[in-house]
Amino acid sequence: MANLSSVFTVKNLLVLSLALNVSLIFRVLILHDAQNGSFNGFFFTKHNRSQSQKDALFSPVSSSSSSLSMAQTDQDRVINLDHGDPTMYESYWQKMGEETTVVIPGWQFVSYFSDATRLCWFLEPEFANQIVRLHNVVGNAVTENRHIVVGTGSTQLYQAALYALSPDTDAEPISVVSAAPYYSSYPLITDCVKSGLYKWGGDARSFSKNGPYIELVTSPNNPDGFARRSVVDGSEGILIHDLAYYWPQYTPISSAANYDLMLFTVSKSTGHAGMRIGWALVKDEDVARKMTKYIEINTIGVSKDSQLRAAKVLKVISDNSERPNAGDSFFEFSYHVMAKRWKQLREAVHESGLFSVPDFPPQLCKFLNVVFEPQPAFAWVKCEGEIEDCESFLRGKKILTRSGKHFGFSPKYVRISMLDRDRNYNTFVERLSTIRS
Amino acid sequence: MANLSSVFTVKNLLVLSLALNVSLIFRVLILHDAQNGSFNGFFFTKHNRSQSQKDALFSPVSSSSSSLSMAQTDQDRVINLDHGDPTMYESYWQKMGEETTVVIPGWQFVSYFSDATRLCWFLEPEFANQIVRLHNVVGNAVTENRHIVVGTGSTQLYQAALYALSPDTDAEPISVVSAAPYYSSYPLITDCVKSGLYKWGGDARSFSKNGPYIELVTSPNNPDGFARRSVVDGSEGILIHDLAYYWPQYTPISSAANYDLMLFTVSKSTGHAGMRIGWALVKDEDVARKMTKYIEINTIGVSKDSQLRAAKVLKVISDNSERPNAGDSFFEFSYHVMAKRWKQLREAVHESGLFSVPDFPPQLCKFLNVVFEPQPAFAWVKCEGEIEDCESFLRGKKILTRSGKHFGFSPKYVRISMLDRDRNYNTFVERLSTIRS
Repeated sequence: MANLSSVFTVKNLLVLSLALNVSLIFRVLILHDAQNGSFNGFFFTKHNRSQSQKDALFSPVSSSSSSLSMAQTDQDRVINLDHGDPTMYESYWQKMGEETTVVIPGWQFVSYFSDATRLCWFLEPEFANQIVRLHNVVGNAVTENRHIVVGTGSTQLYQAALYALSPDTDAEPISVVSAAPYYSSYPLITDCVKSGLYKWGGDARSFSKNGPYIELVTSPNNPDGFARRSVVDGSEGILIHDLAYYWPQYTPISSAANYDLMLFTVSKSTGHAGMRIGWALVKDEDVARKMTKYIEINTIGVSKDSQLRAAKVLKVISDNSERPNAGDSFFEFSYHVMAKRWKQLREAVHESGLFSVPDFPPQLCKFLNVVFEPQPAFAWVKCEGEIEDCESFLRGKKILTRSGKHFGFSPKYVRISMLDRDRNYNTFVERLSTIRS
Repeated sequence: MANLSSVFTVKNLLVLSLALNVSLIFRVLILHDAQNGSFNGFFFTKHNRSQSQKDALFSPVSSSSSSLSMAQTDQDRVINLDHGDPTMYESYWQKMGEETTVVIPGWQFVSYFSDATRLCWFLEPEFANQIVRLHNVVGNAVTENRHIVVGTGSTQLYQAALYALSPDTDAEPISVVSAAPYYSSYPLITDCVKSGLYKWGGDARSFSKNGPYIELVTSPNNPDGFARRSVVDGSEGILIHDLAYYWPQYTPISSAANYDLMLFTVSKSTGHAGMRIGWALVKDEDVARKMTKYIEINTIGVSKDSQLRAAKVLKVISDNSERPNAGDSFFEFSYHVMAKRWKQLREAVHESGLFSVPDFPPQLCKFLNVVFEPQPAFAWVKCEGEIEDCESFLRGKKILTRSGKHFGFSPKYVRISMLDRDRNYNTFVERLSTIRS
């Protein structure tokens, strides 16, 4: 018996070891796949409706660059920092292991309805609870007397807001404006199906039409990272506040935002872009109801599965944030990664001498209790000197970025994602620092 | 020691028993919540943009009926069969236990991208595989030489199709038509944001404009269950085939559908409406690309979580269907439930004498190898005699249905969901059979 049991132990160890191997191979494969996604990520655009729609959210890179991604060594491989795929956070969630694993039985959550008594009837109650809790923990938004509307990402919520806020008349479509540089997707989303309700009106700074308008205030701003207020001096303005980046890894949390209509998304707060989940905090009940109606008509609600998963992720972040001296707090981790990356970027820009990045005033973050300079999710890089087309110039160095022209600004600027995986980011700053002309 | 260990055993049993209790309570609560959803499910509409949009997908019941759901006994409680919430399937998935349970670690599927090399870059490869496999198993659609586009339900895919198919010019919006009675939501979705690209054109049977148009063919049809072909006699028609109900529980599968653009959804095939997942099979590459672009602009892709869950559900259905003499096959189960329900309904209609339902020609189903009459997901019930407003009449009997007027048809008709849970359905047929005036 003793012999037999020792044989079993060895066998057991072998099985364990093999299982570990399989799991590691699986992990490596998944990481490899995901990694490929981040530098092969471009899409053909030639069949699109119009020039402006050629340059859609994920598609400003022309199809001709498809061959660039063939080379795999760090010196000459293409680094794609065009879109803000937040894969940087992946390593944190890996480290957290099973804490945020979600298990959904096949027979649960089959109904269209999450809570038929709620204004937003497709909002999962547990997700709503965790949204309120996280805002209270971080102190970045007022949730009292607000209606929560869940959306398939904040992109859908933006459209829901346009639908809800545009006037209920047969008049001209209402103008939608934002101060340049503005998020490159907003004009595309606004004019996608040529709505008769609303219409992209361009740079808010040069807007001077009389009557009602919608002003979109993104703060901190995408692409340049600055804190913002509305700029149009009109009495009939209706404001949408896109607060996707108002989280402590990007900017000091100075006070709880207290606007009429505020948009948030998990893609930039927790990094779970694949979930497609965002939420709006809405003061006015009628507006919240109309936004809900839009989402009902557009997609008959929002994936329950992603809401459940998002609820779990938000809960873990709040739990970790409330634990005293937690070394594993999500915002501590992401704050430190962003701080390190911005330090690296500023050093590379200094080293090269060809570029500049914005400077930001430091401020006290009431959540982290630290004074720091904003460290945005995107770097708004200017090519100094005679380089007029910064995007093309960097593409020549096999660095894919998004040109300033997509943001209603000069092509001397590019937007660069700061949220890619370490390997890509490190190769990028190394390469940037050696560029001389 | 013996005493101590026996104490431990009792303690252990107690803990086990308590855990079981908690789990049962949880299950009961969830069932209760879900049940409530199905008879409290109505939403205020008074703040909507226009009359047509008052009658949105889930909102044709006026707010005044909110108090109706207070009564809970079977004799006088309100039965809401207005919307097609497919909760009927819940019991099957419960019976299947953990086979379709999905487990998603927090660090996986964080990226926007599922497969950047694929035309539809946000489509999970495993979901795509299972879609092809299921269609091959059931034989209801040709998948060869087709592009798959995934959507947040087929509702989003319908909009993506309109975007992709409408002409790329500055001409008048293209007319979108469908033969009445047509799905009540199609006009609402089409005209939701007053698009300049496309416009609802009403009943296809009375459409006579020259030039290009889009004809929507829903087969089997929602609301009346009949198999359909296009009806407009025009040379410039572009067809969208909505095949949400072309599954063996609803209608004999006579051949594999082989159209240019076909829409499917899990909500009516597997009953997982809360997932918000649908797919399109698209012949033309340009059209598939433009549909993908629409979904990129509308929601930057589709929930990965729901795609993974849907892949698992589809896989289990195919596995069970391929197993010889499987008593637990999904389509066998759902076919038998529908057959039983239609039998009950026809008996109740006969008993009452006040109503009529359509008759369908029987046909051979190549999948089930049975000749049967279609047994649609909705009953298209006519109030005979002098009752002009069938919806109001039935509301007086505390049965909530959707009036024929929402489907471009006579208010003498109502659409009744056949997919509610047993308890609601049985109460409904019982009550219907006793109605005399």
